[in-house]
Amino acid sequence: MPDILRREDLDFLLNDVFDLEELCRRPFYAEHERADIDAMMDTAERLAEEVFQPFAAKLDANEPTFDGERVHIIPEVPAALETYRQAGFPAMAFPAEIGGMGLPYMAATAIGAWFAAANGPAMGYLSLTGWAANLLATHGSEELKARYLGPMCEGRYFGTMCLSEPQAGSSLGDIRTRAERREDGTFRLFGSKMWISGGEHDMSENIVHFVLARIPGAPPGVKGISLFCVPRILPDGARNDVRLMGLNHKMGNRGTVNTALAFGEKEGAVGWLVGQENHGLACMFVMMNEARVSVGLSAAALAMTGYLHALSYARERLQGRPLTGRDPSAPMIPIIQHADVRRMLLQAKCYAEGGMALCLYAARLIDDLRSGTEEDAAEARRLLEILTPIVKSWPSEFGLRANDNAIQVHGGYGYTRDYPVERMYRDNRLNPIHEGTKGIQGLDLLGRKVPMEGGAPFRALLARMRRTLAEAEGDEALSDIRAAVAEAVDGAERTTAAMLAAAPKAGAEAFTANATIYLDMLGHVTVGWLWLRQALAARRALAAGGAGREAFLRGKIDAARWFCRYELPLTHAWRGMIEGLDRTALDTPPEHL
Amino acid sequence: MPDILRREDLDFLLNDVFDLEELCRRPFYAEHERADIDAMMDTAERLAEEVFQPFAAKLDANEPTFDGERVHIIPEVPAALETYRQAGFPAMAFPAEIGGMGLPYMAATAIGAWFAAANGPAMGYLSLTGWAANLLATHGSEELKARYLGPMCEGRYFGTMCLSEPQAGSSLGDIRTRAERREDGTFRLFGSKMWISGGEHDMSENIVHFVLARIPGAPPGVKGISLFCVPRILPDGARNDVRLMGLNHKMGNRGTVNTALAFGEKEGAVGWLVGQENHGLACMFVMMNEARVSVGLSAAALAMTGYLHALSYARERLQGRPLTGRDPSAPMIPIIQHADVRRMLLQAKCYAEGGMALCLYAARLIDDLRSGTEEDAAEARRLLEILTPIVKSWPSEFGLRANDNAIQVHGGYGYTRDYPVERMYRDNRLNPIHEGTKGIQGLDLLGRKVPMEGGAPFRALLARMRRTLAEAEGDEALSDIRAAVAEAVDGAERTTAAMLAAAPKAGAEAFTANATIYLDMLGHVTVGWLWLRQALAARRALAAGGAGREAFLRGKIDAARWFCRYELPLTHAWRGMIEGLDRTALDTPPEHL
Repeated sequence: MPDILRREDLDFLLNDVFDLEELCRRPFYAEHERADIDAMMDTAERLAEEVFQPFAAKLDANEPTFDGERVHIIPEVPAALETYRQAGFPAMAFPAEIGGMGLPYMAATAIGAWFAAANGPAMGYLSLTGWAANLLATHGSEELKARYLGPMCEGRYFGTMCLSEPQAGSSLGDIRTRAERREDGTFRLFGSKMWISGGEHDMSENIVHFVLARIPGAPPGVKGISLFCVPRILPDGARNDVRLMGLNHKMGNRGTVNTALAFGEKEGAVGWLVGQENHGLACMFVMMNEARVSVGLSAAALAMTGYLHALSYARERLQGRPLTGRDPSAPMIPIIQHADVRRMLLQAKCYAEGGMALCLYAARLIDDLRSGTEEDAAEARRLLEILTPIVKSWPSEFGLRANDNAIQVHGGYGYTRDYPVERMYRDNRLNPIHEGTKGIQGLDLLGRKVPMEGGAPFRALLARMRRTLAEAEGDEALSDIRAAVAEAVDGAERTTAAMLAAAPKAGAEAFTANATIYLDMLGHVTVGWLWLRQALAARRALAAGGAGREAFLRGKIDAARWFCRYELPLTHAWRGMIEGLDRTALDTPPEHL
Repeated sequence: MPDILRREDLDFLLNDVFDLEELCRRPFYAEHERADIDAMMDTAERLAEEVFQPFAAKLDANEPTFDGERVHIIPEVPAALETYRQAGFPAMAFPAEIGGMGLPYMAATAIGAWFAAANGPAMGYLSLTGWAANLLATHGSEELKARYLGPMCEGRYFGTMCLSEPQAGSSLGDIRTRAERREDGTFRLFGSKMWISGGEHDMSENIVHFVLARIPGAPPGVKGISLFCVPRILPDGARNDVRLMGLNHKMGNRGTVNTALAFGEKEGAVGWLVGQENHGLACMFVMMNEARVSVGLSAAALAMTGYLHALSYARERLQGRPLTGRDPSAPMIPIIQHADVRRMLLQAKCYAEGGMALCLYAARLIDDLRSGTEEDAAEARRLLEILTPIVKSWPSEFGLRANDNAIQVHGGYGYTRDYPVERMYRDNRLNPIHEGTKGIQGLDLLGRKVPMEGGAPFRALLARMRRTLAEAEGDEALSDIRAAVAEAVDGAERTTAAMLAAAPKAGAEAFTANATIYLDMLGHVTVGWLWLRQALAARRALAAGGAGREAFLRGKIDAARWFCRYELPLTHAWRGMIEGLDRTALDTPPEHL
């Protein structure tokens, strides 16, 4: 059985590329030594391997069911979550004062990667709880925090995010759930919520729903949405008026129960306002950075584990012979020897490890936001603005393709349920959809983030890229990689400038018509830059002796080179498609389709 | 419920683009009037809709099972196949003298598209039977033909193709199944076969396996493989020594039972030689053109039906508002109004309808092979040599992406099993794998077909493309499309010439290292050319009045334009990656991965 993840990949990113040591030295994280983090990583690796991964296939084949009364989930799920809880992992990145361990976010993210790779659907319940706890910690009243935050951080209460409704998914401004104020300051909620992961089960003492709803008289659209805390079990021990209407049966990610919930079929579901009235969506978006990094992380982790399965298979599976010297009685060779298999593996490696680099980089920016100097925090905020849609989308799109390659490397075997790569593919297919579809991310990036603050976030990103280009200057061994990344960065800048210049005349619709292609383009440039950073880090480590990982480090440089030669040229083609604000799709009338 | 396929798409390709009328006028097909074919198409549409499609989801959810004694398949499958049989569809393209209807192959292919789109897994049993019957008709002895061909053409006996073994998939030269000659001229077979679709069930009176095996003393490799006919039930009514070892459980295409078979666990499975000793693989390859067109067709048909589902959903689903004038209380608009949804639909349309054009064009070449003048047949053979790997692979790769877009257009709903698009995606994922993986097709194209006969097949293809470019000259409305296709054709020619010129020095390994990218590149150029042909045909039809299908015809031109602007630029990027015979993947040692 191949490894779930390679520890050395994560260690390389944390230590050689993104300098976790520096974070640990910050007073904010002073409690944590590198050795503590290493020990937690050991535990995560062991739990992922011994507890979570063994039932991933079983959970996929035995998804939660609803008998009209109760939701049934295989017992391995609560058992595994209990071991995770006992290891103290829930909310490990939360400050100690609210029950967390105060770990650097980047370290917590890398630890989370083990569980996302081993059994994301089982882990889903606590990932969601973490996001919900975060929301509560940031916006909740003291009363709510006192009541729910502790048990959520301990993993005794689970949390959910109730945003979508059957008629309102991407268009959250159109939710209809109604929250009526009562004299005692509580609210009664009435409405239907859709796609609620972890919405109903018996695995936790309580389920704390965070629900978007409209208070009667609120302005229409997103400016009239408020956020409410609606527990499944009320403080007096009674069941709240929240009913499971049914389960959604998905292509993958089957182990995370996904529900349609009815609020207030009888007297109304009791809820407490979180944050200010009519500012619910803004509250939600504060936590969206982290949720979206988490989606990207799941996608990258699944891509990595799929890649390792394909790599292991390609090293063992004998098939065919070298093209040179075709003696049919010569022994067969491992398929990794075939150029096309190597190409598929390299592409998967570039997507998987490139996606992971992107997510850990974003996580490190979240650390800067929390613990950096004022200037660093401001810079991190700008970078997160522009990078969040990319971090959410790029691993979801290209990590999925890595999983696709993993199936293809396995040939017919990869298409069967006897190998896990098809399940990983099905699980990962969720990621371009939830927490804002890829199309929504594209609009967020090009329509909102690129023009915002006079372009400061975009410029901050370019400046970071050019800092790395400057560092690489003079390293002959990386000169081709550096040149390719420099060309791509300059191109992204030129194309963006051309699009912004043309936008006032062309209008918003034409400006954003190809936002999704822009998203892929800037994503590729960003990951190309991060591959250059990885190549530079590998060069430094090799210069320092390599410490018994020469092949591993050289592989990082090979991958960086492969990405520059086979992926960055696509950015050129994409730029050509979009920089003139082409209207072909807009001008094709729906009735022509 | 959206249509399974749009009849007007198929009619447009058959009539406006590929001139079925001309085929019908040929003496070879004189029995068939266009009206007969239209009537059969009506029947196919009706059966697909009323009989095949209604149980496609049920079949997916209830795949065949094996209780150790018998294979159980839901009764809808044999019932549907019986209606197909009674309509006279099996082997419809076979000549009348062997029980067929002698239909033009292109027409039979279009008819087959209905069933591939409606319920490919159920249809799989008879598709395979068709290929097997074809093999028997071409290479079987009179005795075998007399015994099996009639019942196979009637659909009473089913057929299978037994090529792969657990240790030999892509590397067929390594099969180990042994065929011992007996004094009566029969053989006894011993060995294991893997991935045998339709290998065991009770739905037909007999199952006629066509099995590759080695006669002891045969030369090693592909030159020592012979082909045998091995019926499940022997002529004397006894069961042959063929045992079902187990079923493969797949990600999709679940309704076609896929088996591992043991031949000769006792006294040996009785078989009869088909074709010449040691020429088994050559016999197999005679039918491969058709089998591979059939794979491409399935992929394109699934892409089309997925596209129509997405189109219908996008027209009905209300979500969001126009970017201009964001009044949050204005009514929501159908998502087809959003530029990014339109982009996804246009891409899916280009892939799906472009793939179907490719398959029907190849089918028409098979008609030329059978019924054309000697010169036309020779030209058709050359074109089929070069096009077959593309016809097999391009719809498998890009049709799959059309299905992926169909999921994305549906958002969360597309990820659930309540909508059929996720099943179509899972079904279509098989097509890049079976009947020669995509990697094998790339090697076949670049390593074998491009250099063969001094490049004659490649030149023949370019000549066809340039004939269309000449036709389009002077049509102002298509000048941008024509220019883009011309640039892509010239580029493909230049890149191919550069690669061939560099090959002798660089060696075979470097020449074919990026064969898969070459395959995508030449595939895109070919489909781009066929989109120009479709645009030209649409222009002609519009000039003739449009006959109430103006929007439809203009949509073909829109799609051609979209393909030129958003897909053909990729060929430029791909050419840049491969024309220097880049060795990055080859030079990356496996231990660096």
